[in-house]
Amino acid sequence: MPLNNPVETVSIALAERSYPILVGGGLLARAQTYHDVPAAGAALIVTNTTVEPLYAAPLRTALQACFRRVHLVVLPDGEQHKNWQTLNLIFDALLQHRCDRRTVLFALGGGVVGDMTGFAAASFMRGVPFVQVPTTLLAQVDSSVGGKTAINHPLGKNMIGAFYQPAKVVCDLQTLTTLPAREVSAGLAEVIKYGPIADMAFLDWTESHMGALRACEPKAMAHAVKRSCEIKAHVVGQDERESGLRAILNFGHTFGHAIEAGMGYGRWLHGEAVGCGMVMAARLSLALGLIDAPFVTRLVRLVEAAGLPVVGPQLPPNDAPGDGAADVSSNADRYLRLMRVDKKAQDGDIKFVLIDGPGRAVVRGAPDALVRQVIDDCCR
Amino acid sequence: MPLNNPVETVSIALAERSYPILVGGGLLARAQTYHDVPAAGAALIVTNTTVEPLYAAPLRTALQACFRRVHLVVLPDGEQHKNWQTLNLIFDALLQHRCDRRTVLFALGGGVVGDMTGFAAASFMRGVPFVQVPTTLLAQVDSSVGGKTAINHPLGKNMIGAFYQPAKVVCDLQTLTTLPAREVSAGLAEVIKYGPIADMAFLDWTESHMGALRACEPKAMAHAVKRSCEIKAHVVGQDERESGLRAILNFGHTFGHAIEAGMGYGRWLHGEAVGCGMVMAARLSLALGLIDAPFVTRLVRLVEAAGLPVVGPQLPPNDAPGDGAADVSSNADRYLRLMRVDKKAQDGDIKFVLIDGPGRAVVRGAPDALVRQVIDDCCR
Repeated sequence: MPLNNPVETVSIALAERSYPILVGGGLLARAQTYHDVPAAGAALIVTNTTVEPLYAAPLRTALQACFRRVHLVVLPDGEQHKNWQTLNLIFDALLQHRCDRRTVLFALGGGVVGDMTGFAAASFMRGVPFVQVPTTLLAQVDSSVGGKTAINHPLGKNMIGAFYQPAKVVCDLQTLTTLPAREVSAGLAEVIKYGPIADMAFLDWTESHMGALRACEPKAMAHAVKRSCEIKAHVVGQDERESGLRAILNFGHTFGHAIEAGMGYGRWLHGEAVGCGMVMAARLSLALGLIDAPFVTRLVRLVEAAGLPVVGPQLPPNDAPGDGAADVSSNADRYLRLMRVDKKAQDGDIKFVLIDGPGRAVVRGAPDALVRQVIDDCCR
Repeated sequence: MPLNNPVETVSIALAERSYPILVGGGLLARAQTYHDVPAAGAALIVTNTTVEPLYAAPLRTALQACFRRVHLVVLPDGEQHKNWQTLNLIFDALLQHRCDRRTVLFALGGGVVGDMTGFAAASFMRGVPFVQVPTTLLAQVDSSVGGKTAINHPLGKNMIGAFYQPAKVVCDLQTLTTLPAREVSAGLAEVIKYGPIADMAFLDWTESHMGALRACEPKAMAHAVKRSCEIKAHVVGQDERESGLRAILNFGHTFGHAIEAGMGYGRWLHGEAVGCGMVMAARLSLALGLIDAPFVTRLVRLVEAAGLPVVGPQLPPNDAPGDGAADVSSNADRYLRLMRVDKKAQDGDIKFVLIDGPGRAVVRGAPDALVRQVIDDCCR
């Protein structure tokens, strides 16, 4: 059990790019955690204004036991800053500190910090190592694992990035105790996700432990993080670059990305949009006859129990400033327009991750009319 | 001989990332050249304002025989535009045209277009295929082959990028006939480079054919491009990500990058800076006792015969605007400061590619005092 044996390791098997995911309490501040990270160059901790006061000092102290030079760069917090301007702050810091090819980047924070630090590591001098030190539930159970790194473009989320694996992922469960309730709920969206697409026993477990999870009880959190990482590692190990299977991990994300982009990045948390997006994707699965109504009801109740929205937003019109032309599109039009630039789309045909029976997902298209109906039914 | 059998193929062996380099006259405008490129999505031609009027139309026509949609984006021309702002023009075009993951990018132009298009292809939706269609001698003999892609940062050249191999390289020798003499000379710097580091017989050939090369005689050009690509393919095939051997291809580039950055990107052509940089690196090799004076003299004469500078510039002082502090550093200080952020540097220790005997290169450091002496001797 996690409490008796506090550090557990999940391995992600990708040949020469394999790496361990450590799960345990208090890992972040222990020098021993980083003993196998190459330390011939400098370390650069990348974090944000929210996480810096909480964890930058203990991480820096731990790293100073391994590295001669430990630098720090603090980014603004929030999805709306996941862009080139913020990414460039990392490159500026690396070059101002004369960091070389042996530099190791440490992503200390949530999904945004992890995605940007990973892309910076992939691109700086064409690639330096990096370590994920996720401090949110969402990052521990999903975004820090699997090597997807990216920044957003005004026309689409995560459009510019790289598949680039970290050298190590350090999930310190103690960091979850400082999370606001809203962030815990957002992270639970990605925990819930793994059940319907891959593991009905985990769905059962998630349902019966939702109270403990929202209260951040250590044993429940340890299991949620470990099992989520195991499922994700298994899927990514089979399809690192998302040529097929891996896309099922995007359950809820097609509708969810439209909500995030359509509402303006940062208004809805990623996990909130994914929670609501899973409800919409489940309803679309039902409309296509892939699953029955009780399964949808069960999922809606679970998303709701996690403290997440189950009703989609009306996306605001996209009036281009200054050209005088009002946006007269309907809400469904706006969802569809945004989903057509999703990375899974082909020639503007949207590919949805749908539930194809309990514990099984499929990636496929759907008739526009049916999608519009689902959007109209789900949004208020 | 190239004239009787106009298309020659050099293969670059990188397991599943292997690809062919085609060398011949008139290749660019033939649909058949692209028959094996996956054409399920759209094609995006990336070029610049100089090359667009010359070759965009014939390439577009050839691609229209393969692709349903062929789009075009035209970048400003010049090394000073090899930055994020220009790269973003490619992403904007891809997203405005609703290009998906199956899109193929075509880099039509010189090294700057190739480097930026390659990095855009590496990063767009975390990676789409691209084809190099180099139209300068420099790009045909060097930059389009081997998968190095990048943009510049104000503090260093090619600091942000990826190792990302093209699906194919199409060296159309006819495009060389429209090159200005200055561009031909710049390309010859990279041709000259291969002899001293790897192939003395090719150095002999280059010396005896310099007149034909500067006149762009087809047979001479065909051999220069093919042999350069063969040597580069051989080196890259052994060390794709520059963990060792590949660095020898940067002969002349450590000093050269300092000249380019120090003079302001675009003032010196890359090949001009490399030509002069080879002279400086050869003199440093001599100062370290690695080669004899006649070898240096031979190289200086060859660089000069190619129409390239053999005397280094005095780098202008770097007065930070507004802070009132004048830059009182010496010329050698300025070179050293810029070379310490070279990607080969470790902890600010500059690694030089030096000639270690005819046809053999070595990567190593050198005492600062000796480097300063060489800079003082070489610059006026």
